[in-house]
Amino acid sequence: MKYILASKSPRRRELLGKLGIEFTVDPAAGEECMRGVGPEEIVKNLARNKAEEVASRRGQAHAVVIGADTVVAVGGRLLGKPADREHMKQMIMQLQNRAHEVYTGVALCYEKDGEACCHTFSECTRVRFYPMTKEQIERYAMHSDGLDKAGGYGIQSDAAVFIEGIEGDYNNVVGLPLARLYHEMLALGLL
Amino acid sequence: MKYILASKSPRRRELLGKLGIEFTVDPAAGEECMRGVGPEEIVKNLARNKAEEVASRRGQAHAVVIGADTVVAVGGRLLGKPADREHMKQMIMQLQNRAHEVYTGVALCYEKDGEACCHTFSECTRVRFYPMTKEQIERYAMHSDGLDKAGGYGIQSDAAVFIEGIEGDYNNVVGLPLARLYHEMLALGLL
Repeated sequence: MKYILASKSPRRRELLGKLGIEFTVDPAAGEECMRGVGPEEIVKNLARNKAEEVASRRGQAHAVVIGADTVVAVGGRLLGKPADREHMKQMIMQLQNRAHEVYTGVALCYEKDGEACCHTFSECTRVRFYPMTKEQIERYAMHSDGLDKAGGYGIQSDAAVFIEGIEGDYNNVVGLPLARLYHEMLALGLL
Repeated sequence: MKYILASKSPRRRELLGKLGIEFTVDPAAGEECMRGVGPEEIVKNLARNKAEEVASRRGQAHAVVIGADTVVAVGGRLLGKPADREHMKQMIMQLQNRAHEVYTGVALCYEKDGEACCHTFSECTRVRFYPMTKEQIERYAMHSDGLDKAGGYGIQSDAAVFIEGIEGDYNNVVGLPLARLYHEMLALGLL
C-alpha cells in the first residue's frame, strides 16, 4: 500500500511518521473554503477537499491519500490561521482564561474493488488556557511561532506554558488525531 | 538566578528548556523509595528527595534546584518503571482498555532571605487507553522504548496510537507539568 499525505504541515508529517508507514507528502494547492454546518462538518469538508484534490490529480490506484484540517472553535466563532501578528494577538486574547474546542477533520481517499472511496471523521479536543496578563500576551504576540497554526498557537511549542489542561487527544490539537486515525485505518483494512 | 534540574530524564530536560531559562542538569543519585500515603504525597516526597540531595551536595545559594518524579496509578496500584520487557508487558496489559492516573510531583529547593526553602506540588492527569489485542501487546512489548518510563509507556512515542485521550496536562504525563511549574515559579518569584 502507498500512502500520500495531502498536507504541508510539518507537524502532521511528524505525527504520521509514528504510524511506522512509508509515505510521501503531496500538499493540496486549492483554496481553503469553510463549507458546512458546524465545526465537525466544516473540518471534514476541508479535509475531503484536500484529499480528493490530490487523489484526482495523481490517480489513486493502490494509494491511500490522507487529508486533514484543523480549526479552533471559541464562543461560537471559528478561528483558522491568523493573518498576521496583530490578528494572532486578538486570537490569544479570546482564548486566554477559558476553554475552547479544537476540531481536526481527516479524510482517507482510497480505492476499493475498483471504486473510489472517501472516508471522513473528525475529532474534538477541549483545551483550557490559564489567564494571561497583558505583558504575557504582548510578548507572546511578538515572539510566538503560532502564525501558521489554527487559533494562533502551537500546544507543543511556546503556548505550552499557558495551557492548563485538555480533554481528549493531544495530537488532535497538534493537527492529526493519530490514535483515532490508526484505529480507523485498521478497521478499513488500510494498514 | 541559576537553575539546576535534578533529573536525568531527557524528556524533562527538553520540557524545562521550553521555559526559556538556562539550566544545568545534575541528577540525584539516591535510591528511589516510595514513602507517603497516596500517590500525591509519594511523588512529592520522591521529588523532594531528589531536589534536596542535589541542593545539599552543591549548596543552593542563588540556585533553584528542580526535582521531579512520575508514577502511574491504576486500580489502586502504583507503577514505576518496569524491570524488564516481561514486566513492561504486564503493565500494558493492566493499562489497556481503561483509564489510569499519572502523577508527577515537583520540588523546588531555593534560598530565601538566607533560609533553605522547599516548595512541592503534584499534578494529576487521567489517561485512557484503547483496547489492545494480544498481538498489539506482544509487538509493543518487543519493540517499545517504554523501559525507562513509569507505567512502561511513553505517551509521546510508540504508545501514542493506543491512547484515546487524556484529561489534564499532557506534559505532566511526559514527566513534567510545565505550565503548572511556570505558574508556581512565577508566584514564588523564581522566574
